[in-house]
Amino acid sequence: VSRLVGVDWGTSSLRVARLDSTGHVMQERTSARGILTVAAGEFASVLEQACGDWLAEPGTIALVCGMAGSREGWIEAPYCPCPAGFDEIASKVVWAVPGQVAVVPGLSCGAPSVPDVPDVPDVMRGEETQVMGALEVLGLRDATLVLPGTHSKWVTVRAGRVHDFATFMTGEFYALLRKHSILARTMSTSDEELDVAAFRAGIDLALQSRSLLHSAFSARTLSLFGRLDPAPASSYLSGLVIGEELRAQRSTPQGEVIIVGSDLLCRRYSLALDSLNIAWTSPGEHATWRGLHAIARRLQEQQP
Amino acid sequence: VSRLVGVDWGTSSLRVARLDSTGHVMQERTSARGILTVAAGEFASVLEQACGDWLAEPGTIALVCGMAGSREGWIEAPYCPCPAGFDEIASKVVWAVPGQVAVVPGLSCGAPSVPDVPDVPDVMRGEETQVMGALEVLGLRDATLVLPGTHSKWVTVRAGRVHDFATFMTGEFYALLRKHSILARTMSTSDEELDVAAFRAGIDLALQSRSLLHSAFSARTLSLFGRLDPAPASSYLSGLVIGEELRAQRSTPQGEVIIVGSDLLCRRYSLALDSLNIAWTSPGEHATWRGLHAIARRLQEQQP
Repeated sequence: VSRLVGVDWGTSSLRVARLDSTGHVMQERTSARGILTVAAGEFASVLEQACGDWLAEPGTIALVCGMAGSREGWIEAPYCPCPAGFDEIASKVVWAVPGQVAVVPGLSCGAPSVPDVPDVPDVMRGEETQVMGALEVLGLRDATLVLPGTHSKWVTVRAGRVHDFATFMTGEFYALLRKHSILARTMSTSDEELDVAAFRAGIDLALQSRSLLHSAFSARTLSLFGRLDPAPASSYLSGLVIGEELRAQRSTPQGEVIIVGSDLLCRRYSLALDSLNIAWTSPGEHATWRGLHAIARRLQEQQP
Repeated sequence: VSRLVGVDWGTSSLRVARLDSTGHVMQERTSARGILTVAAGEFASVLEQACGDWLAEPGTIALVCGMAGSREGWIEAPYCPCPAGFDEIASKVVWAVPGQVAVVPGLSCGAPSVPDVPDVPDVMRGEETQVMGALEVLGLRDATLVLPGTHSKWVTVRAGRVHDFATFMTGEFYALLRKHSILARTMSTSDEELDVAAFRAGIDLALQSRSLLHSAFSARTLSLFGRLDPAPASSYLSGLVIGEELRAQRSTPQGEVIIVGSDLLCRRYSLALDSLNIAWTSPGEHATWRGLHAIARRLQEQQP
């Protein structure tokens, strides 16, 4: 891939990167033009504003991942069913501007087979690119990955293909409880540094609990009895919510877990995995760009 | 107890009842003067407005349960530790107006002993009166009860005393997800009748799931794939949340469960218990008044 512009176009932000032929970042820009701010028909011009200078170079293509490929985005790139690796993903790429701008599909999977329960689908969009990039960076073909966030994903990769995955609404539950629940009254209003001891106490309780519906109430009762101060209370809640995700996921990890995400969330998840004595590693911050580069390479190979 | 006025004074409403000597309701009034609307120092006059005519009769006492006994209420009635029955509760009643208005304490309990987890307290305030009333109505001394609501309580009673209990933030989680989460976008905005099939599907999935953090996302993916319509979606979510409570509580129920609450919530919890083949019964709507009456009787017996 001689000239590639990577585009990570999510709900609330637009990130673009000019990549060299090995997939390394030469230049990077970020804007607040997430898809929620873009009217139908304006995606091409918003991308032009963001990186028209790069796209003007002859032979350049832009490869887009994230919610820009959803029904509410630029053009729908239907979910690619699991198992899916580079070949399956590249074959389902949809061209928004023929020969110039292509959109990576999200992935879908069925529920792990549970007796008596109708097959419930799960989906991701954007994370598939991070997963494939992390595999490239770390040189792995079999792995368990977690992508923390508003909707965390736990992903199982076998022989270089995403085998299945599960979504946890961890970040969203945290934000709802932090801002809108009765628990918010017992917490400092400002966002503070992580209090590691309080975070670990939350993790520990969640791992022993049977449901966040119950364990979350402990943030209230511990405050009521003077055993949890307003400043560390949000760290405690963060531990409860992330600990709940790990409890539910506990039987899955085989060996090391790959954490793919922001430094802030990587820190919290690594502390949580430490509490369970589960080894972890992280591919660093460029998983998305490496993933787009690798997909673009497959795309070129597939073309006649 | 010759002349008793029962007062159920919660966060958002004030209910009063004039009871006869056997604890049956002669008259009942409801107002929106919950404790959040009452300034410190004004509780006596608000009660006077609500039922001054009843209180004026010689020899009348008012017995108050609910959040009026909390730190933010009329006068703090400190939590009575479990195990607690009529005698323990009556001995911890606090007089707001000596000889005239008394306030029932809430209950506290420690966490069921879990290795490696610090003892986490749980609390209730108001529900203790409903529990004791339900035991009176049904003539029971050993029971498992559920009191559905914003913060549901599961209560174990042994030999006429509350042995321990656990709080689940079920109603609050439902409201947060229904109103403020991404799931709200897939649901009709108006509140609709319970869709029993969708509710049962939610219950079934939750019972097989390991955490609401994961199962809740199914409301989004089923909608995305056209398998859940906007109208029944909130019933499905209600089933997911109540089903999660039951899953977490599953090992506890020994035999029949007593459901104490509004008709609307009793209906949902009875459907959920049916799904688990757990028998249930309900004491009807007057558990609070019967509880206050029975506590007042003990109070009189304890007085010199």
